[in-house]
Amino acid sequence: MARNVAQKLIANHLVEGVMEPGTEIGLSVDQTLTQDATGTMVMLELESLGLDRVRTELSVQYVDHNLLQTDEKNPDDHAFLQSAAERFGVWFSKAGNGVSHPVHQAHFGRPGTTLIGSDSHTCAAGALGMLAVGVGGLEVAMAMAGQPLYVAMPQVWGVELTGELPDWVSAKDVVLEMLRRHGVTGGVGRVIEYHGPGLEQLTAMDRHVIANMGAELGATASVFPADDAALDYLEAVGRSKDFTRLVADEGAEYDLTEHIDLSGLEPLIAMPSSPGNVVPVAEAAGEEVSQVVVGSSANPGLRDFAVVAEILQGRQSHSGVSVDINPTSREVLADLISGGWLTSLVASGARIHQSGCLGCIGMGQAPATGRSSLRTMPRNFPGRSGSEEDSVWLCSPETAAAAALTGRITDPRTLTESHDLTYPRPTMPDRYSTVAGMLEEPLPPEEAERVELVKGPNISTLPQFDPVEDDLSVPVLLVMGDDVSTDEIMPAGSRVLPFRSNIPKISQFSFSRIDGSYAQRTKGAEHGHVVLAGENYGQGSSREHAVIGPRYLGLRAVIAVSFARIHWQNLTNFGIVPLELDDPEDLQAVSVDDEVVLEGLHDALRSGRGLTATIGGREVGLHHTLSDRQVDMVLAGGRIPLTAQSI
Amino acid sequence: MARNVAQKLIANHLVEGVMEPGTEIGLSVDQTLTQDATGTMVMLELESLGLDRVRTELSVQYVDHNLLQTDEKNPDDHAFLQSAAERFGVWFSKAGNGVSHPVHQAHFGRPGTTLIGSDSHTCAAGALGMLAVGVGGLEVAMAMAGQPLYVAMPQVWGVELTGELPDWVSAKDVVLEMLRRHGVTGGVGRVIEYHGPGLEQLTAMDRHVIANMGAELGATASVFPADDAALDYLEAVGRSKDFTRLVADEGAEYDLTEHIDLSGLEPLIAMPSSPGNVVPVAEAAGEEVSQVVVGSSANPGLRDFAVVAEILQGRQSHSGVSVDINPTSREVLADLISGGWLTSLVASGARIHQSGCLGCIGMGQAPATGRSSLRTMPRNFPGRSGSEEDSVWLCSPETAAAAALTGRITDPRTLTESHDLTYPRPTMPDRYSTVAGMLEEPLPPEEAERVELVKGPNISTLPQFDPVEDDLSVPVLLVMGDDVSTDEIMPAGSRVLPFRSNIPKISQFSFSRIDGSYAQRTKGAEHGHVVLAGENYGQGSSREHAVIGPRYLGLRAVIAVSFARIHWQNLTNFGIVPLELDDPEDLQAVSVDDEVVLEGLHDALRSGRGLTATIGGREVGLHHTLSDRQVDMVLAGGRIPLTAQSI
Repeated sequence: MARNVAQKLIANHLVEGVMEPGTEIGLSVDQTLTQDATGTMVMLELESLGLDRVRTELSVQYVDHNLLQTDEKNPDDHAFLQSAAERFGVWFSKAGNGVSHPVHQAHFGRPGTTLIGSDSHTCAAGALGMLAVGVGGLEVAMAMAGQPLYVAMPQVWGVELTGELPDWVSAKDVVLEMLRRHGVTGGVGRVIEYHGPGLEQLTAMDRHVIANMGAELGATASVFPADDAALDYLEAVGRSKDFTRLVADEGAEYDLTEHIDLSGLEPLIAMPSSPGNVVPVAEAAGEEVSQVVVGSSANPGLRDFAVVAEILQGRQSHSGVSVDINPTSREVLADLISGGWLTSLVASGARIHQSGCLGCIGMGQAPATGRSSLRTMPRNFPGRSGSEEDSVWLCSPETAAAAALTGRITDPRTLTESHDLTYPRPTMPDRYSTVAGMLEEPLPPEEAERVELVKGPNISTLPQFDPVEDDLSVPVLLVMGDDVSTDEIMPAGSRVLPFRSNIPKISQFSFSRIDGSYAQRTKGAEHGHVVLAGENYGQGSSREHAVIGPRYLGLRAVIAVSFARIHWQNLTNFGIVPLELDDPEDLQAVSVDDEVVLEGLHDALRSGRGLTATIGGREVGLHHTLSDRQVDMVLAGGRIPLTAQSI
Repeated sequence: MARNVAQKLIANHLVEGVMEPGTEIGLSVDQTLTQDATGTMVMLELESLGLDRVRTELSVQYVDHNLLQTDEKNPDDHAFLQSAAERFGVWFSKAGNGVSHPVHQAHFGRPGTTLIGSDSHTCAAGALGMLAVGVGGLEVAMAMAGQPLYVAMPQVWGVELTGELPDWVSAKDVVLEMLRRHGVTGGVGRVIEYHGPGLEQLTAMDRHVIANMGAELGATASVFPADDAALDYLEAVGRSKDFTRLVADEGAEYDLTEHIDLSGLEPLIAMPSSPGNVVPVAEAAGEEVSQVVVGSSANPGLRDFAVVAEILQGRQSHSGVSVDINPTSREVLADLISGGWLTSLVASGARIHQSGCLGCIGMGQAPATGRSSLRTMPRNFPGRSGSEEDSVWLCSPETAAAAALTGRITDPRTLTESHDLTYPRPTMPDRYSTVAGMLEEPLPPEEAERVELVKGPNISTLPQFDPVEDDLSVPVLLVMGDDVSTDEIMPAGSRVLPFRSNIPKISQFSFSRIDGSYAQRTKGAEHGHVVLAGENYGQGSSREHAVIGPRYLGLRAVIAVSFARIHWQNLTNFGIVPLELDDPEDLQAVSVDDEVVLEGLHDALRSGRGLTATIGGREVGLHHTLSDRQVDMVLAGGRIPLTAQSI
């Protein structure tokens, strides 16, 4: 049978189940990546599991999130992660080395392999013909311990690209067009596979941009073929030996199809405060801008900075704008220097920051109250920037540079006339810089087993969670709407993230953006509680703290209209029951403090998909989509207690 | 009469008093600088005073401290400062443009002029033959309003330099030698004037290093002659037209004298946690290091980064060390790029940060718990780094680079053998880069008067303070030891500084490093309170919040053995009475909660130097050193209420 790229990748790694969309399958995992915000928890999980050495082909721990070091907590975590990487046989990318996804692609990306990562943008590696999936930290810990990844077999969504991108329109606009058409849930349950003649124009780094923001579409993964563009890229990073061609068979079909004519695209922008609020830049033009930030995994390529530098070259950025440049990695920085681009950026008035995620994860770079910030980043959920009343827009480097020049949202196509600018097409070096010294190889086993974990005073062991009760009778503490993001369930940012290895402390921030009284009110519900929500509950980041925090405070079940994939997985991993409403209208009838009664929950979950609860005295029909494996896990109190014995 | 450089500078600006050491003099002020941490308060003071336009030759507002932007407060302040600079006719140096002192020297330094700044390291400008004094923000506001600077006429301390610095020993070691000999109070009441044949070897930027850390010696100012080195420098920044030769007259004498043979110096280091704990690096060698930070106003010259780059060139920094580079300014960054040095630093594994003060003021770069951090910065008071249990050492760029290579404190002289290194002497460009675009000129008056101040939600107006009561009967809330720094009175760092424009909020942090219950306990003392301390009370930064915060909580008088100059001035400016113990032994007999009774305080202060208090029932002899002007000011509740009518 003719197979597409996604089907080939899945078939080659299938260890459990059958490739029937919607059913659970188990996939072998070749590579893992963890970043520091989620990685400390992963390392503590490996410690809880008693693992001696990772069983993947390759696992890498990056430090790219918590770089600000306003007190000892972040550097203590860095030291802990370095020691844990040494202990468990993991590569270690030091603080300031760069953003995980592009660094991983440059050093470890290999067509035909599987990668999972405890960061939702892990999917970026699909650019090189990998099946790359962002998951919760515990999934990664399990893969590092040699276990398969369990996911629902996705539908494969073929997106055919034809035509050529016009001047001033680039890869970011392609994925913004997908978001304009389909919003933040359009990719749920799907792998997006890009194909067609339009691919020829897109380099591996362009594809990285598009694959990265598959996360914003809610997709399980985004996949590109491993063709000449992948080979060109691997040659440019000095690893052509790692190339394997991987393209769809002739006549391969897709579960769903889509077509984008690249020639018809124009510069697009996501308005505050969702990546799904996409409009043409021309429609938003004129809005005053106080900050422009260039960087992050969503526009990480040398080209994405070089094009900004060439637009700003010989010009002064606008007096009212802070232009912040976050070079992706030491290697991109080295190439920006040698290409002369950094000099142009500095001369134009840009602030050059260290390499890392920074403002993308709310680590600094917060904008002023109520003032617009344009970013080449992937997300703009409310408050994610760190500012209370933020107004963050997402766009291409070209659109960002235009605003840096004019101080207003500006369609970059107008620069040709207003600034006498020809669309710059920067020439990339044949060979990118390699600065590998800060990427440390795993220790050999005999040295690794002697390493002691270095735990600062803020790093505590994982709390143990009890199995879920068979008869639940607990109050509703929150009733929420649609598209609640993990940023709202558990904020990131410099105030909260430093406590990521300290569950009792970080749990106090749970739902604080939605209802500041939540943590306090959980104390009055000694037998636990539930929360209710609308569609797409838990969209956004893969952070497990959005599950562990509320669980620590007594959350037993979430009842929602629908769930975002990674968060749903995380709920089951930590023993919180995810239940869906048969009738979305039932949500309207529920109030805070209603009593939820679920009797005989264990049998009900085991015996089928449907069950009935009483909420505030009314009978409400519910169902679940857990596999038998997941039911066992939830009822045991999560995956760690269930698995620890077998490792 | 033959005059030294300091006497010439003072004589040329004397508008009140006579040049008799210890008596108060008034000096005209040519230039002022403010930075953002203290500048928001200065601008609010100008607003309170009703000033229309600054009356100095030149005033500059820098944004170099609060660059992290973890929420909206810092960027809101930046916007406020930009609007205030426009409103009052002040130059504005945008966030990320660079550290105030070296940027000021490059763009505005002019021999023979006076400069005051609301930053204790303003004294660095003495490198160019200026009389430059760090003072509280209110002093700067008054100077901007055209008033003289009042100081006690200092003694002039002539430090003769002879000989030549050996390899691996540089300017930082010269000032560390001064601190080794004299500690953190050795310069109190003095202007340090460097002279002698050893000067020939020291460039203007070397002199900047030495003059800068005059603040750590407690000196009123440090002064160098404006000789060929100053001319060379002004030529290199394209301003030779601003050169005036200013050297001591032949036969000029000094109130005190000192001699340093540069040839006899070796690499020195200040141990945790005071700039006065200086020992030879060789004595500390072997101590494990987890962080090396290069930057700040104490080692800001291109040369200071270039020498590190040349030591690290072609080598990898140690795996256990985070090497953090804070380029002083956009201009230094531009020169680091064009000289090839930035490439060497990146390749060696350094983290390149934005330009600004950063870790020097506890804005990020906090070290891990209990691990040693080596910094080319000027201060290492406990906790200033942001970490609870910090261990910060101060050293030259050479010593910092040696530790970056070896992971331990290392005498850089040993690198010749261990790393086959010849002492690098980087060649400086004839002309430094100029990136002036982010340094914005004052608006013309007709435009300036139309500017509205932009106040974010966290910027509040100044509270008004009552005059001091004539009969005080209030409790002692703290009894402290010697050398209490302003970092202990009012911490800086990313948690506290964002509230600098919000007195009710920031006051809650007063004395929190010394006694966490202080702010709470002030509530029980409704008629106010006093605190007692030992010698050199209020050393360190010039921050006025260390006075305004406690004053807001009811502090009426500080009784100490002795005071640091700037803080003493700040106390009087905000209506807190600074009193000195006749007998230091009396401090031992005082306990917290003792009642302090001061009757007829107004007359006592006006009629002479001495007065008597009853503390805990015992009679205690006190004295003050306030001028008549200052007595009026203190009794009126501070300088703002006293002055506002006359502006």
